Amino acid sequence: MSNNGSRPLIGITVGDPAGVGPEIVIKALQDGGVREQVRSVVYADRACLQQAVEMLGLEMELNEVASPADGKDEAGVVDFIEVGSLAGPIAYGQISAEGGQAGYAYLDRAIDAALAGEVVGLATAPLNKESLQAGKVPFIDHTAVLKSRAAHREAMTLFVVRGLRIFFLTRHISFREIADAITGEGILEALPLCELYLRQLGLDEPLVAVAALNPHGGEQGLFGTDEMDVIGPAVTEAKTRGWKVAGPVPADSVFNQCYEGRYDGVLSLYHDQGHIAAKTLDFHGTVSLTMGLKFLRTSVDHGTAFDIAGQGIADARGMVEALLAAGQYSASVREGLDLAPVV
Amino acid sequence: MSNNGSRPLIGITVGDPAGVGPEIVIKALQDGGVREQVRSVVYADRACLQQAVEMLGLEMELNEVASPADGKDEAGVVDFIEVGSLAGPIAYGQISAEGGQAGYAYLDRAIDAALAGEVVGLATAPLNKESLQAGKVPFIDHTAVLKSRAAHREAMTLFVVRGLRIFFLTRHISFREIADAITGEGILEALPLCELYLRQLGLDEPLVAVAALNPHGGEQGLFGTDEMDVIGPAVTEAKTRGWKVAGPVPADSVFNQCYEGRYDGVLSLYHDQGHIAAKTLDFHGTVSLTMGLKFLRTSVDHGTAFDIAGQGIADARGMVEALLAAGQYSASVREGLDLAPVV
Repeated sequence: MSNNGSRPLIGITVGDPAGVGPEIVIKALQDGGVREQVRSVVYADRACLQQAVEMLGLEMELNEVASPADGKDEAGVVDFIEVGSLAGPIAYGQISAEGGQAGYAYLDRAIDAALAGEVVGLATAPLNKESLQAGKVPFIDHTAVLKSRAAHREAMTLFVVRGLRIFFLTRHISFREIADAITGEGILEALPLCELYLRQLGLDEPLVAVAALNPHGGEQGLFGTDEMDVIGPAVTEAKTRGWKVAGPVPADSVFNQCYEGRYDGVLSLYHDQGHIAAKTLDFHGTVSLTMGLKFLRTSVDHGTAFDIAGQGIADARGMVEALLAAGQYSASVREGLDLAPVV
Repeated sequence: MSNNGSRPLIGITVGDPAGVGPEIVIKALQDGGVREQVRSVVYADRACLQQAVEMLGLEMELNEVASPADGKDEAGVVDFIEVGSLAGPIAYGQISAEGGQAGYAYLDRAIDAALAGEVVGLATAPLNKESLQAGKVPFIDHTAVLKSRAAHREAMTLFVVRGLRIFFLTRHISFREIADAITGEGILEALPLCELYLRQLGLDEPLVAVAALNPHGGEQGLFGTDEMDVIGPAVTEAKTRGWKVAGPVPADSVFNQCYEGRYDGVLSLYHDQGHIAAKTLDFHGTVSLTMGLKFLRTSVDHGTAFDIAGQGIADARGMVEALLAAGQYSASVREGLDLAPVV
């Protein structure tokens, strides 16, 4: 049964205990495929794990360990580090200071372990922004905490879904701001990082395609000139520098072409461009990787889902995929920390 | 073998004979699934069909018929109407006046047949805009011809891919024009047509979801106010009028939710929003339906692909899906011509 030597040891945080995090973590740990690929230790409190196991009506042993590697690593056992934030059960689905503080404390402790090399990477369940605020946690989200404590280079989100890999040039801005936020400088700064981060995943000489902005890529200026004026020249400059880049490729083709193996990754220009592709292809199979840290962190791409927390109906497929991706790529990301970007 | 009574008779146009159209039509007619569902007659010339069959190295009988219903309807036989436009082979992959004129002549004759009820619907292979221009054809594309000759209501494109159905509020405009082109009036004009056209496909009391424009649907104004100012109020007004409408739904969720059956169709706000969803989900399985005509017309959603024409390597899956969709929906669309839109 045991296969400790070869399977990577991944730290899991349950996120805000009032959300679906503990539930999807417990469910994911019952997945045989996960156990085959990954060894894990959960950062939480016995109280919140106990609450989730009881709510799900499961018989699972909660095995508190002193150190991540001390786990029993057996089916039906949750090896966990007692973070000591919650003393008892929490009200599901409620914004609360204690939920925010607990979720932050789990993450903080897991980051310690990842920085110390006690776990090779992290897979995280969702935090709740409002609970973090209520708890006076001085960070707005996971990324802010991770950037503050574990930055190695510029952090970048990478979506991985069924072999399709998607980076984002812009993300949380309004639609009307997108076109002007796309600059040649921005593209030329992003491309070496995309290339580097794909190499950190183990891809040799990766080819990155830059998505177009306008329908049909603008059709020679008929539907917009951003490709002619900005995106095309930036791609040309990147090629001149010897980088492996393609594009701009019409956005309704580029994701399918990457999926079919023509490119190793896509640089999407805005949030929905890449999100629509990933989540329509496989909503629950979309895993978010945070690159540019001192270790790999993967996460589900949904929130605490307070509306369904505590009901046992949360879909754990995203957490399963996040764990599998952490297992697949964490060692490679660490080994590639000293790789240099293309220049 | 014969099943003439129940299978719908679909007219097929091969499009520009210098493109991949004849090839994908011939290939699609060899598909057993197509033959099981659909009876067909091809609008073309013997010359261009012969050229395609020889290029593909196939043994198929080209059976010229006087009237669409006269076909042999047998495996290995292409029942076709001789349009008499091309006398001999054409150079593949070249823009030409004769190619443009021939493609237009096939379409024109097929429209005659559809208007006369000799075929129940049409499935069309691609035309080439530049060849149409070279041939002085007074239309820029399929839609212009169809609107001119067979308009019943306002024509609208509907993408169908694996049970996901997508309409478009705006389409061939630049990205920078999109936000201002989205108006409450536009949405309130489009929704009854979406609803009507879904009923024409046989869906009872269809529920249409309107996609959002900004990431996360704007997140209460944090990333844009179009949902609060324009899209949301239009959806509310539609509901007040008693229409079955949902939204605005964040664009990275709405297509997956429709695919899973929560909605019967999605009104996407711009070209790439719906195109990325459809073509990433299933590039070759995306069929374009032209609604609002006196009959159903389906088509592949790609062009003449002059770069690979005449090589035998064109992928016919799109044509197969277009034929299957024409077979599935043509009768229903005709029966629903007199349905009234919701008011």
